[in-house]
Amino acid sequence: MKPYGEMTREELLELKKGLSEQYREFQGRNLQLDMSRGKPSSEQLDLSMGMMDVLGSSDDLTCEDGTDCRNYGVLDGIAEAKELIGDMIEVPADNIIIYGNSSLNVMYDTISRSMTHGVMGNTPWCKLDKVKFLCPVPGYDRHFAITEYFNIEMINIPMTPDGPDMDLVESLVSSDDAIKGIWCVPKYSNPTGNSYSDQTVRRLARLKPAAPDFRIYWDNAYGIHHLYDDVQDNVLEILAECKRAGNPDLVYKFSSTSKISFPGSGIAAIAASQNNLADIRKQLCIQTIGHDKVNQLRHVRFFQNIHGMIEHMRKHANILRPKFEAVEEILDRELGGLEIGRWTKPRGGYFISFESLDGCAKAIVAKCKKAGVVMTNAGATYPYGKDPHDSNIRIAPSYPPLSDLITATELFALCVKIVSINKILAEKETV
Amino acid sequence: MKPYGEMTREELLELKKGLSEQYREFQGRNLQLDMSRGKPSSEQLDLSMGMMDVLGSSDDLTCEDGTDCRNYGVLDGIAEAKELIGDMIEVPADNIIIYGNSSLNVMYDTISRSMTHGVMGNTPWCKLDKVKFLCPVPGYDRHFAITEYFNIEMINIPMTPDGPDMDLVESLVSSDDAIKGIWCVPKYSNPTGNSYSDQTVRRLARLKPAAPDFRIYWDNAYGIHHLYDDVQDNVLEILAECKRAGNPDLVYKFSSTSKISFPGSGIAAIAASQNNLADIRKQLCIQTIGHDKVNQLRHVRFFQNIHGMIEHMRKHANILRPKFEAVEEILDRELGGLEIGRWTKPRGGYFISFESLDGCAKAIVAKCKKAGVVMTNAGATYPYGKDPHDSNIRIAPSYPPLSDLITATELFALCVKIVSINKILAEKETV
Repeated sequence: MKPYGEMTREELLELKKGLSEQYREFQGRNLQLDMSRGKPSSEQLDLSMGMMDVLGSSDDLTCEDGTDCRNYGVLDGIAEAKELIGDMIEVPADNIIIYGNSSLNVMYDTISRSMTHGVMGNTPWCKLDKVKFLCPVPGYDRHFAITEYFNIEMINIPMTPDGPDMDLVESLVSSDDAIKGIWCVPKYSNPTGNSYSDQTVRRLARLKPAAPDFRIYWDNAYGIHHLYDDVQDNVLEILAECKRAGNPDLVYKFSSTSKISFPGSGIAAIAASQNNLADIRKQLCIQTIGHDKVNQLRHVRFFQNIHGMIEHMRKHANILRPKFEAVEEILDRELGGLEIGRWTKPRGGYFISFESLDGCAKAIVAKCKKAGVVMTNAGATYPYGKDPHDSNIRIAPSYPPLSDLITATELFALCVKIVSINKILAEKETV
Repeated sequence: MKPYGEMTREELLELKKGLSEQYREFQGRNLQLDMSRGKPSSEQLDLSMGMMDVLGSSDDLTCEDGTDCRNYGVLDGIAEAKELIGDMIEVPADNIIIYGNSSLNVMYDTISRSMTHGVMGNTPWCKLDKVKFLCPVPGYDRHFAITEYFNIEMINIPMTPDGPDMDLVESLVSSDDAIKGIWCVPKYSNPTGNSYSDQTVRRLARLKPAAPDFRIYWDNAYGIHHLYDDVQDNVLEILAECKRAGNPDLVYKFSSTSKISFPGSGIAAIAASQNNLADIRKQLCIQTIGHDKVNQLRHVRFFQNIHGMIEHMRKHANILRPKFEAVEEILDRELGGLEIGRWTKPRGGYFISFESLDGCAKAIVAKCKKAGVVMTNAGATYPYGKDPHDSNIRIAPSYPPLSDLITATELFALCVKIVSINKILAEKETV
């Protein structure tokens, strides 16, 4: 089929008639499907049920160093958990603090602490007139929600297939000392699925920020979340790269086992330089006596080591891969060649990013919803929920069963077609 | 034996000689004992090992309302956990948000949120020149550490056996709008072991604060932590009392299962009015997707209901009671009638509070340490670590085995005697 843009008004109207008929059929099916959030499916959750058995009443809940995990103490995590998470995120165990169940909470705490107490002796942000963050877009809505909540001005940075536009990042960061951070999802990025190139990581590590308390907020959310065994993205380890660049304190690296074991019942961590960790511990020792060590031990006993974890991720991939492939197959088949949208084909992570014609995303998502399929809100992938092109839609294939996913994606493709035709027709009117 | 104060210089010197001999004997024993923190003993922890078995790989981790506890979601806790904790702290489930593993963390978050975002629409504290808190003393060092960390000025309020000096509290709170809160441990208070009288609770609930964002920070740490079956303290439920008084938003009530199940691996909660909870949820939904629901479910399945929890607490009491009684017996025997110290005989909680002669607490704790027994630092029970009388020492009998505890307490009594004699002798010199 030829591109919609090359069709005549009459051809488009004829096409729309048939598509609208199909849409009414979908509406008649009373669908209730959800492609909005990056949630694992229950089949994936079943993979970790063995975790419920590794600590029983007859097991010893003692660490190798003699720590009784059942009692108070051990502010920054048991040694075994630091080693496991260290291997997972390619950072020495000494550079890690283990937290509670959520890396989002760790990021929130990090920003909150910077507001009230500043970063490594610098002025608390709440005492400054203006604080700004760089936000590669499209990006993760919950990152943007944290910075918005703290009234931090967010500046859009376009994402390229290699990561954020580094020319822009370098020029802004080096010239404006109100810029205190940049949100990054370096691997299988949310939502584009792209991974930062070596060159991007090297340039980030070599930033010369005007602000001494500028930090890279490195959300390593999908570090081992590959879809394939043979083709896998690799991202340079940022802490080591910052150290090599003479900028050891430049980065906070966040991660968790949320999409490895159980979301909400995993363990989270921050990795950073010793200077940063010392700064963080000053707060941490006021905030808590220690996080959940029993759950840390449970994770260690279940995965045993990084090899166990990698094996486990292979099982996740086996469930996720067919879902990603199904979405891609439908988009290729239904939308290929029409020039009304582009989409990513990630090798890992939880999302496919769809770019519609400008000004169509909100209408597409609304049209899907009217037929019973919930997508992530259009605009959600941009700060303040404002996509300047109204074109980005995040597709989350993980949660629905495959059959539902196929139905939902077919409806989505249909909505893309109808909304695109409406747009092209409207443009023809105004010409 | 007659009071030391009535002895002659010669009698005291003679007495000291024998006591110093005993002290040297203790030193020769190379003791390494710890009476510093309110940690449960491993015997107590064993009581909850059954919790490790209630959720196995063949169990259904689904709530009554169909929520899969293994996945993301449920911001403020599963219904079953709210009901259990509600019964535990005598508050309707609707007034509760379940948090992570630590009520200390909830208190920290509450103060931190007030700093950056204010309380229910009032000015964020970080924008104010001065914020003050009332601190009943002696009190809990970790409370004071939070307010100190946020540079909040702490004002000492003397504790009476009925709770804080309410005349002083009322006059300060009603006249100074910089006073934003009061730290309270209402039942089996840390460290005195006293409980607030009905009259105290009623007067707190009827405070007329100058600051609209003044709150009572009600740390219900020992609500069901009785030592005896027959004699138990009862404290009026503060949320209901505030409601009755027309001040429904006046209080945040904190609690956790830390000293019920496993410290560090329990569940924590806040209880407050709907207005306060709505204010808190605005932050919570930015901070996290949800706390550890699997652990919430684990607690519910283990305790079943409040009856199960009360039964469980009886087992804790059976382990703790002999320890408290041993300490009290030794203090009575060794120090009774000497008029060199007073101590509390609590009916619950985790501490005995000792009042030495003025100016002796630091010296007593130091002398214990030199013979291998670690006590809570003298001064720790006061804001900024400054006990104006240098007289309060917190005794924590829970952790050491009984035989160690007896040794440690005997050494403690000996140190009290020696340090007191030194003080009385020094006074006689200067007269």
